[in-house]
Amino acid sequence: MRAALEVIAERGYRGASLAAVAERVGLTQQGLLHHFPTKEALLVAVLRERDDWDALPSGRLRLDLLASLVEYNAMRPGIIQTFSALLGESVTEGHPARGYFTERYGEARASMAELLRAEYGDRLPGGLTPERAAPLVVAVLDGLQYQWLLDPESVDMPAAFRDFLTLLGEPPQGHAP
Amino acid sequence: MRAALEVIAERGYRGASLAAVAERVGLTQQGLLHHFPTKEALLVAVLRERDDWDALPSGRLRLDLLASLVEYNAMRPGIIQTFSALLGESVTEGHPARGYFTERYGEARASMAELLRAEYGDRLPGGLTPERAAPLVVAVLDGLQYQWLLDPESVDMPAAFRDFLTLLGEPPQGHAP
Repeated sequence: MRAALEVIAERGYRGASLAAVAERVGLTQQGLLHHFPTKEALLVAVLRERDDWDALPSGRLRLDLLASLVEYNAMRPGIIQTFSALLGESVTEGHPARGYFTERYGEARASMAELLRAEYGDRLPGGLTPERAAPLVVAVLDGLQYQWLLDPESVDMPAAFRDFLTLLGEPPQGHAP
Repeated sequence: MRAALEVIAERGYRGASLAAVAERVGLTQQGLLHHFPTKEALLVAVLRERDDWDALPSGRLRLDLLASLVEYNAMRPGIIQTFSALLGESVTEGHPARGYFTERYGEARASMAELLRAEYGDRLPGGLTPERAAPLVVAVLDGLQYQWLLDPESVDMPAAFRDFLTLLGEPPQGHAP
């Protein structure tokens, strides 16, 4: 799995080959095919693995923990590179990860709205509902990753995300769970 | 150029071939090679063309025009798909568009900071400086594009960007140029 992540990070999914993954782990291509019959099957396994790693029980994430997750992500450029590359490719026609990302982003917006409602109630300080602010939080997380991957010296991703939390405004007292 | 844009939108740069572009415009591959000796040369030409189309003289962009640009982008999914796919690929190792995007994003942050200063002065309502808010504006623009490309029925990109402008807060009177 780690070898697959590395190869996708280096070449993207479309540029990756089972042969390159097999070589990296010292398997013959035949040996790798025994575990993953197609490149697509390997991709699905990689995406599932990520979800297992990063999953938190619903309702357990808070805005301040989200800032910590961004700090954590800034220490693992490899995996962020893999998923940023896959997200980019997924918008091309018939990409095998497209369905996965479409569903994942729908869920991400829904759980972000839930998180924002727990912190702020039905309105954020600027007047937006949690449902309308949710896609913006998700967008900032993704967009900052690209800027940071391209130019880590110029972009302090965790600091920029904390700046975004400043824009969202202070949660009212007593609303934090 | 249009054929190259289409092929990259469908397959990504790494999945695109000069043969596919040549076929789409009814040239032999030999004929296409006469204009663009390598796939990379074609990519550079596509990126330059985009800059020529979208360039505005420095200091001419305003926040409300930025909202109009997002409306406009929502009517041209093809070109947004091409550049979102390229941005994603560009973070993989040795991608030929990586230098282009790194430079472009540095410039984008700088001109966004200039635009924010013209609207807000030295501090935004939430207390951020224009330089610290700039990467967030750029991140929201990119991040919303991915969500919208994946699920245009669920994500109203122009409305979401206007919501983000609401978060930034009202510019003070008399600061707008």
